[in-house]
Amino acid sequence: MEQAKPTLLSEIGEFGLIDRLTANRKMVQSSSLMGVGDDAAVIDAGDHCILVTTDLLVEGIHFNLIYTPLKHLGYKAVAVNLSDIYAMNAEPRQITVSIAVSGKFSLEALEELYSGIYMACDKYKVDLIGGDTSSSVTGLTISITALGTAKRDEIVYRNGAQTNDLICVSGDLGAAYIGLQLLEREKELFEKDHSLQPDLDGNDYIIGRQLKPEPRADIIQLLKDNGIKPTSMIDISDGLSSEILHICKNSDKGCRIYQEKIPIDASTAMMAAEFNIEPLICALHGGEDYELLFTVPLESFEKLRNMKEIHIIGKVVDKEDNALMLTAEGNSIQLRAQGWDGLLERE
Amino acid sequence: MEQAKPTLLSEIGEFGLIDRLTANRKMVQSSSLMGVGDDAAVIDAGDHCILVTTDLLVEGIHFNLIYTPLKHLGYKAVAVNLSDIYAMNAEPRQITVSIAVSGKFSLEALEELYSGIYMACDKYKVDLIGGDTSSSVTGLTISITALGTAKRDEIVYRNGAQTNDLICVSGDLGAAYIGLQLLEREKELFEKDHSLQPDLDGNDYIIGRQLKPEPRADIIQLLKDNGIKPTSMIDISDGLSSEILHICKNSDKGCRIYQEKIPIDASTAMMAAEFNIEPLICALHGGEDYELLFTVPLESFEKLRNMKEIHIIGKVVDKEDNALMLTAEGNSIQLRAQGWDGLLERE
Repeated sequence: MEQAKPTLLSEIGEFGLIDRLTANRKMVQSSSLMGVGDDAAVIDAGDHCILVTTDLLVEGIHFNLIYTPLKHLGYKAVAVNLSDIYAMNAEPRQITVSIAVSGKFSLEALEELYSGIYMACDKYKVDLIGGDTSSSVTGLTISITALGTAKRDEIVYRNGAQTNDLICVSGDLGAAYIGLQLLEREKELFEKDHSLQPDLDGNDYIIGRQLKPEPRADIIQLLKDNGIKPTSMIDISDGLSSEILHICKNSDKGCRIYQEKIPIDASTAMMAAEFNIEPLICALHGGEDYELLFTVPLESFEKLRNMKEIHIIGKVVDKEDNALMLTAEGNSIQLRAQGWDGLLERE
Repeated sequence: MEQAKPTLLSEIGEFGLIDRLTANRKMVQSSSLMGVGDDAAVIDAGDHCILVTTDLLVEGIHFNLIYTPLKHLGYKAVAVNLSDIYAMNAEPRQITVSIAVSGKFSLEALEELYSGIYMACDKYKVDLIGGDTSSSVTGLTISITALGTAKRDEIVYRNGAQTNDLICVSGDLGAAYIGLQLLEREKELFEKDHSLQPDLDGNDYIIGRQLKPEPRADIIQLLKDNGIKPTSMIDISDGLSSEILHICKNSDKGCRIYQEKIPIDASTAMMAAEFNIEPLICALHGGEDYELLFTVPLESFEKLRNMKEIHIIGKVVDKEDNALMLTAEGNSIQLRAQGWDGLLERE
């Protein structure tokens, strides 16, 4: 009998893999309100809910210690998990941190990593309540789980977008990606000629966006203060295009994104030009911006228009009307997810 | 200026590392009832508590795929986390599963892993509610977080043992360790001569204890049914000696363990003899038994004596009286933790 050929993971991609591994599972605990498929899982805890999210960071895949200071790495590892909790319109409370390290790491190196972890804990008022430590065969792996709380009716999922809702994004996009390109370039130059010093002058912003992203707690607070509850929300870890498609798919809607409304910082655009990359590509597919992408009812428009950290970039349409980006020239382009696929190893 | 020499992780060991990395941290969230330092962290959720525990399993450190079927590995990865929840006298409800895999794994291999994960989920009625998938540079890493619930006054910590309490252990000890030795031996023989088939006949019990441990949900239920609430509890992942010292340290007590009361299965003793290892050493320092070690007030004696799955192996004494094991010959031996230290790579 002929044996079926094994399926390569690269053939199906990360989302395909998750779909395959989690398909057709029914939840049996009544407290499991939301499982796989949003920024965080939701557990009913009586008068409120507990939110749970987890991320795995692998050396050589998600980070390169040549240009990533351990303290920044620790900070970022926490920040990206908190971002998932905020993206549910919830407040982070606790984290667990597990690390696997090879013999090349010293106690002092790990203390440096943890100083970054604790810096993020202090800033966002979360407690480190547990974890695990292990040796590894090669390099460093960090697994963080973040827990948060929210009242049940405060939680914002990916699936609540309504036709005619405004699509909003916080901050600006693409900087983390172009910051990474710059770090990679300087690394390669250094590897060819060790006498060269990295030329990072004047690029603090884009490098900071890559190495030390901040979860947008401030945006969640701003919306709350103004009585705005998004109908759907997600954080931008894989690029605007991939994330808006998640909202469209989960909400069973389509969208119109106006290209000229997508916020891109001048320094991002300048460095992108240096790399001969269209800045728009960085914003659509770069990822790791950890900004919030959300939809709000049309009537919030007046409140939103004066919030300088929030940009209205489009609107929700019926599913049949597709997910399109309209360019300044009046062309319409089908949005596609080309975001970072953890299984395709972008570094 | 001379630079201080970096401290090797092997110099300080896993528990030393955790102490160093988590020392002097105060918790800021009032809901964080228990952080690092027990089988699971405890979060106040109003009318009940949420328990959280996490474990990292690394290929080449914690498991060897040459003799570990992926389905068993998935099952065990869940089981060891649930064991930590039961060890708090709580009920597991949900898990998250993150995996990092190298290109050598196919979709079908991961489906096999997940079939074991789901088998454990089904048996213990827990939901898989989230996770992360990533590529890895080498091998497979599995990070599981388990969540459970308990009423606040039902939770059993490591620190509640009282002088004169009985020390009890469920099941039997040392089998998982000697099962591992057998698997390792057969692997080495196979590597020398590929025509050899593994000789595992008649050793189902010890191999099963290594490859497919069960968390002792039944013991927790048995104690509950009989109205017994342990004063302290821990699960045996690192060997009896290491675990009883955790209870003594956290409870500020000492202990007397009676050597001849330590439950060791006949098949464990026989295989240990074949390896020229004292069976007692397997029980004290082998680890991975995932049995429950707990203390109960003296007045529970009558109820406990007829429970065949529970063995009274000693008693709690004052701290000043030390942690000793009394041998059949009347000698007393200081108990020491020589359990598995994840950072010393026992495999």
